[in-house]
Amino acid sequence: MQYHVDGGLVPDDEATVSVLDRGFMYGDAGFETLRVYGGDPFEWEAHRNRLQHTAETLGFADAVPDDLRARVDETLAANDLSEAYLKVSVTRGVQPGKLTPDPEVEPTVVVICKELPRGGRDGRPVWDGPADVQTVRTRRTPSEAIPADVKTHNYLNGILGKLELRKAAAGGDPADECLMRDVDGNVAEGATSNVFFVAENGLRTPSADLDLLPGVTRDVVLELAREEEFPVETGRYSLDDLRNADEAFLTNSTWEIRPIATVDGIEVGAGPMTKLLQRLFDERIEAEHY
Amino acid sequence: MQYHVDGGLVPDDEATVSVLDRGFMYGDAGFETLRVYGGDPFEWEAHRNRLQHTAETLGFADAVPDDLRARVDETLAANDLSEAYLKVSVTRGVQPGKLTPDPEVEPTVVVICKELPRGGRDGRPVWDGPADVQTVRTRRTPSEAIPADVKTHNYLNGILGKLELRKAAAGGDPADECLMRDVDGNVAEGATSNVFFVAENGLRTPSADLDLLPGVTRDVVLELAREEEFPVETGRYSLDDLRNADEAFLTNSTWEIRPIATVDGIEVGAGPMTKLLQRLFDERIEAEHY
Repeated sequence: MQYHVDGGLVPDDEATVSVLDRGFMYGDAGFETLRVYGGDPFEWEAHRNRLQHTAETLGFADAVPDDLRARVDETLAANDLSEAYLKVSVTRGVQPGKLTPDPEVEPTVVVICKELPRGGRDGRPVWDGPADVQTVRTRRTPSEAIPADVKTHNYLNGILGKLELRKAAAGGDPADECLMRDVDGNVAEGATSNVFFVAENGLRTPSADLDLLPGVTRDVVLELAREEEFPVETGRYSLDDLRNADEAFLTNSTWEIRPIATVDGIEVGAGPMTKLLQRLFDERIEAEHY
Repeated sequence: MQYHVDGGLVPDDEATVSVLDRGFMYGDAGFETLRVYGGDPFEWEAHRNRLQHTAETLGFADAVPDDLRARVDETLAANDLSEAYLKVSVTRGVQPGKLTPDPEVEPTVVVICKELPRGGRDGRPVWDGPADVQTVRTRRTPSEAIPADVKTHNYLNGILGKLELRKAAAGGDPADECLMRDVDGNVAEGATSNVFFVAENGLRTPSADLDLLPGVTRDVVLELAREEEFPVETGRYSLDDLRNADEAFLTNSTWEIRPIATVDGIEVGAGPMTKLLQRLFDERIEAEHY
């Protein structure tokens, strides 16, 4: 595999960054993960806009290169990939040895990729079944500490959630996703996914005002639901709201729409709304990418 | 300069980590910064113990190599350094492409260094004057999200605090340190330092029960104060407690004891207790290292 690092393609085993890169030293970097269908990144503009928002929040607004899309396309071409997972990172680069960022930024830009199955109507999911979800004690970092709507290389909060699953499984298979609450106890999101559920025939998901990263796939699902005139509500929900739901699912760029089998061992499962949204999602990809 | 990466010495401009290293991708790593006086790291055992605690909390307890001290000594020898700053990092290394950590860890271990002035009685501080400290809106990440007593490559919380200083300075010189409160409003710490103050003839510092990293230098200062039978109190303090203090100072491994000139523009300054503690600190280094 070839990766794109600092403006050029390199073999994956030679794709490195300096140990002085602030992306390594401090996780001082933004990133996006995307899926590529039929050669084209899904929702490119939305991902690029969010990366720009992350860069602005971190004070390196000019770091996202104008030719980012060209670098992505070069990476796909070099690896002859048309169905892929992509991760695009922009770091504050190497700076003099102190924590206070220098306004002069020479960013490090990295694009990595791997092959995925086809998506759309004839695609198959990357997951092998509906997700078992388990609540963890680790709470989502509040926005007062780090704004939740930026996607950064500071990912230990989610990793600590995932570690709780590993510990709870005691050598067996850990749950597929951890369910994280905010510090006030509201359902927020998974470590790498947003959560939706169906109750009283309406689609519900935690509000973007809460401490969560509103995913690009989450936005697409909300749009699809509104186009179908499904009742949609965003709000503050408790664990019981989710456990008592009629249907529930997770979303992210790689999983797309993944039904939730169980929450803390309580069966929830898919249902007609989840299945229809999956179909609409696949049709949208089919129409746009194949 | 030569750095130590993955068991061997390399020139600093060739010191790199894979873009797939979890230290880069997620800040999934612990670190320590130390000072070396007369060829020996100050408080080596305390730093090593804290790095071990960080590794255990992050679920890679076996990753800190037994020969870590030898790697440090090799780095110092290769650069002919006896007065130095050191940063030692241990990451979870490269793992298969998912967020959930694999229990099998091949850690990446990095030692970087730079020269510093001599310490002890004949030393001079690395800072050029007492610190101007400014309160920021960014709150210290609560331990419910990431335990505050681990030192990790997830350092954006402190960077966001420092960015507020840069913004407030509007092109001028930013304050030297940002003062961060916890989410409840208690004084916690600086982005890279602990804070002490003197009131009613007693030495005070925020309690280690709060969301702060209890520094090795903080512990040494508390020990020195107790040896002198100074009244010492750890507790919960407000910004006004600090602003109204008779004396105040910051501590970290590099700064040692740095007096606080002003807090939010209000003069505080050094005084007899700060000066005596600086003297005792220098004498301890002199006795142990020269």
